[in-house]
Amino acid sequence: MSETAIAPGDVDLKSYIQDVPDFPKPGILFKDITPLLSAPEAFGAAIDRFAAHFGEKDITAIIAAEARGFIFAAPLALRLGARFVPVRKPGKLPRDTHSFTYELEYGEDTLEMHTDAVQPGDKILLVDDLLATGGTVKACVSIAEQTGASIAGCAFLIELGFLDGRKGLDQYDICSLITY
Amino acid sequence: MSETAIAPGDVDLKSYIQDVPDFPKPGILFKDITPLLSAPEAFGAAIDRFAAHFGEKDITAIIAAEARGFIFAAPLALRLGARFVPVRKPGKLPRDTHSFTYELEYGEDTLEMHTDAVQPGDKILLVDDLLATGGTVKACVSIAEQTGASIAGCAFLIELGFLDGRKGLDQYDICSLITY
Repeated sequence: MSETAIAPGDVDLKSYIQDVPDFPKPGILFKDITPLLSAPEAFGAAIDRFAAHFGEKDITAIIAAEARGFIFAAPLALRLGARFVPVRKPGKLPRDTHSFTYELEYGEDTLEMHTDAVQPGDKILLVDDLLATGGTVKACVSIAEQTGASIAGCAFLIELGFLDGRKGLDQYDICSLITY
Repeated sequence: MSETAIAPGDVDLKSYIQDVPDFPKPGILFKDITPLLSAPEAFGAAIDRFAAHFGEKDITAIIAAEARGFIFAAPLALRLGARFVPVRKPGKLPRDTHSFTYELEYGEDTLEMHTDAVQPGDKILLVDDLLATGGTVKACVSIAEQTGASIAGCAFLIELGFLDGRKGLDQYDICSLITY
């Protein structure tokens, strides 16, 4: 990152997000983050901004759901010196898990986390690429709360404000880097 | 990472891998990496060692398959100032893709990468948590080669040497941090 002449604060992150119409189905305008991931100056600036926001909060563990959540959570965990705790689809984690099932538009989904991954006293940061309706992050909140840990905040690269995903997360410190 | 008193070179990475018998099915001894991810000194040391190995190779892009590959590829891409290029299951990437279908023990699997993610002239590093039989990484090699880019090396946290996954990768610089 040292080779770029662009200061992290000057990077316009939104300019690295590409709109893709009608994906995954007609009428949906998909926000493609891969151009940002392909631009080290932008990807690095995103991690810098999360770290600046949460750096003084003594985060002990970062929880993120597969797969895109991992992309931001892993570098941020290393930056903050926090534990990286993966939340996965059923059958992927090999030991005892907490799980949470939540409703989707059609059907439902379940996420799991190892029971020993988080303890009471932990200060948790939840990380994902996108806050849309909030189903995934609220599942992660529910799983984390089963452990007795406290949630220090939520970090999202993108927030789709018109979907009202913040509703039910008002008590947490939410940092969204790009909003629509 | 600056708060740990353990020098990266002194961390015994293998001690952070937990054997889980009979997962995902009887007779398989699963290597659980989540204890390593929960130890910032070990996770950080792994990224340090990859960066030391490939830091002088002018890597321009890191390709990794979901989901666990993302965990190591994302921090390493930021460290090396390289582009992060996700390889995903069918239907996840929103724009035109290259794809590759490969055989599994039972059935087959397909992976996809955006066609514009890698160009001729790129120097590619392939990253994954585990080299077992090598199906995933060889699929990534095939996808990358469709673009005309050159492959500079492969980085694995764990290599199961007894499964002979290296066969067919002999021409590449392979860095495996933990071997069994």
